[in-house]
Amino acid sequence: MDYQKEALRKHREWAGKIEIKTRAPLDTAEALALAYTPGVAAPCLEIEKNPDLSFTYTRRWNTVAVITNGTAILGLGDIGPVAGMPVMEGKAALFKAFGDVDAIPLCVNSKDVDEFVHIVAALQGSFGGVNLEDIKAPECFYIEEKLKKLCDIPIFHDDQHGTAVVTLAALINATKFVGKKIPDLKIVMNGAGAAAVAICKLLLSYGCRNITLLDRHGAIYAGRDNLNDVKKQMAEVTNLEHVAGDLQTVIKNADVFIGVSAPHVLTPEMVRSMNRDAIVFACANPIPEIMPDLALQAGAAVVATGRSDFPNQINNVLAFPGIFRGALDVRAKEINEAMKLKAAEALAALVTDAELKADYILPQAFDHRVTEKVAEACKQAAIDSGINRV
Amino acid sequence: MDYQKEALRKHREWAGKIEIKTRAPLDTAEALALAYTPGVAAPCLEIEKNPDLSFTYTRRWNTVAVITNGTAILGLGDIGPVAGMPVMEGKAALFKAFGDVDAIPLCVNSKDVDEFVHIVAALQGSFGGVNLEDIKAPECFYIEEKLKKLCDIPIFHDDQHGTAVVTLAALINATKFVGKKIPDLKIVMNGAGAAAVAICKLLLSYGCRNITLLDRHGAIYAGRDNLNDVKKQMAEVTNLEHVAGDLQTVIKNADVFIGVSAPHVLTPEMVRSMNRDAIVFACANPIPEIMPDLALQAGAAVVATGRSDFPNQINNVLAFPGIFRGALDVRAKEINEAMKLKAAEALAALVTDAELKADYILPQAFDHRVTEKVAEACKQAAIDSGINRV
Repeated sequence: MDYQKEALRKHREWAGKIEIKTRAPLDTAEALALAYTPGVAAPCLEIEKNPDLSFTYTRRWNTVAVITNGTAILGLGDIGPVAGMPVMEGKAALFKAFGDVDAIPLCVNSKDVDEFVHIVAALQGSFGGVNLEDIKAPECFYIEEKLKKLCDIPIFHDDQHGTAVVTLAALINATKFVGKKIPDLKIVMNGAGAAAVAICKLLLSYGCRNITLLDRHGAIYAGRDNLNDVKKQMAEVTNLEHVAGDLQTVIKNADVFIGVSAPHVLTPEMVRSMNRDAIVFACANPIPEIMPDLALQAGAAVVATGRSDFPNQINNVLAFPGIFRGALDVRAKEINEAMKLKAAEALAALVTDAELKADYILPQAFDHRVTEKVAEACKQAAIDSGINRV
Repeated sequence: MDYQKEALRKHREWAGKIEIKTRAPLDTAEALALAYTPGVAAPCLEIEKNPDLSFTYTRRWNTVAVITNGTAILGLGDIGPVAGMPVMEGKAALFKAFGDVDAIPLCVNSKDVDEFVHIVAALQGSFGGVNLEDIKAPECFYIEEKLKKLCDIPIFHDDQHGTAVVTLAALINATKFVGKKIPDLKIVMNGAGAAAVAICKLLLSYGCRNITLLDRHGAIYAGRDNLNDVKKQMAEVTNLEHVAGDLQTVIKNADVFIGVSAPHVLTPEMVRSMNRDAIVFACANPIPEIMPDLALQAGAAVVATGRSDFPNQINNVLAFPGIFRGALDVRAKEINEAMKLKAAEALAALVTDAELKADYILPQAFDHRVTEKVAEACKQAAIDSGINRV
């Protein structure tokens, strides 16, 4: 099948991947008088007295904005806000199908980070959460940080944190499978964009101690040239031995390779230079850093990719529907580190010790337990951290 | 029934008056690959080449924002953006139920008109149209005018133009019923807010020649004190004889009274001072300028109100679903004067000469022909003015 052609045909046929459905009856004058004027004045006045009641009297409790500025749409780059809308709409459809979350696709025509922040913050009363989508690094870090300060609803950049949660879940199980311990792992990450930074931070939170990040100039270490603010921050907490060099140099004796970079950059020779029972997560899309068969032939014990046509798919759909479901269920004011860690653990726990295999470290995308378990974990973590409204 | 209490109970029960529904299948890996990555890249790239294709490959063609700043929610005044959301959501539900339009309720936390304009304009790529809602006058005039310049999709302040279209339709039929001619009518309008100004402008466009507007200081005429910019504009084209005075003075020998003002301000004595076969539209909500029975007893030939429990309800739901349906169907770049005039005529034409009675000058809100006929008229007018995309 020609995917591009078929996708265009299907998109024309669907004429939109989501639509609105009414929940209130509007078929009699009396129904109208309750859902609209004059009855609707009553919930308005209640919310005026207590804005948190907007979660009770409107759909806010279940509504999330899926919002982009169009600067990093899929792997296509800066194709502009309107061109990003098919992705936002697809994400909204996934939110509903996998998490029963009502997501509203929006694009903002602004590359100015402060302007973007200002616009999203001004709209926050319309939503119970915000899923930032396909915003380029390093701007995405600034945008998320600022919005978290200005909003009292969850702000979640899925390209960062959704990916990080699923990657951590995969690493928990892969590490268990090879019989190593998380704190002992020597981890090499190729790529230092939004996803890589978020993965790195979450792995550190979980207890990983030895991570080295590489960007196009090689290993990142404190004091190196060509480091933006975020990379400087990462340099303070990674690669503590200040190892310099390219991937070929750094990968030696690593236990784990995590790639969020470019096709074919990890060679079989490099895999052979890794420690025994190497774990390789080659997540570049659509073409991974190394094809799974090559990595396995070179001695990797576990291989994961971002693709649905290979085993062990590191797929955000395993995380974001459940994370937002859990956050919305308790009207959380944010999605914090604890919620992400618990989500990853819950996701990993869906593969039992008996089921765990080299080619089964993560549940399938269509496993109906996933959203429920991730949501439960996330919800409990929100309650435990006291950021829940109910 | 205690409407307020029942409305609160129902709003809690509904847990939101709208929700999202998916249109694309997402139940297999292949379906996912078409609706989301990697397939979704294809429509993104098509839209990047030609942004108008967003109307083909996303739901934009059927999507309207219902957006407020919370400054004039119903008759409740400035209760804030979040407290206005039950109305936005109700309107969105009406859009779907009456016009099959997918409307997205949004509130913007800003009373700064330029900031509001900027935010809505930045979001325009997400929508096929914008329905401004419950924004106070005179700010609403400025906001609408600016947005029309910045956007190439319809910008429509329903409190102004929806009301104007239905009022004109009612006037066309009431005038026909009493056997008078539109250009001969002496019209007195009490109230000079958003709706009044829009009604006045549309009546002038339709051919009314003698209109006098009153605000709280009395009749508006060129050169009077206490006139804001919009009232000054209206003073140039109304009350050409510069009549001063209060309602009691101005109403004498009028053929038509249109009230968008306050309860009980039109007395039976005033109605008796009007011309024979007087037309009284007392649209203050929920309590009209005069109760219909009093107006009829005082000799009015036709009485309309904004209420569903009296005959001749001037109800925006007769206009906005069809107007947007028609505009969206041809991907119109705006909703212009011609579209509004044709919509009013189409609405009026739904009451045949044989059906026309003192208490039946407008079709019922639940008459299924309404949206279809208004949409057809609007669509044709858009094509005739060349502002259609398809």
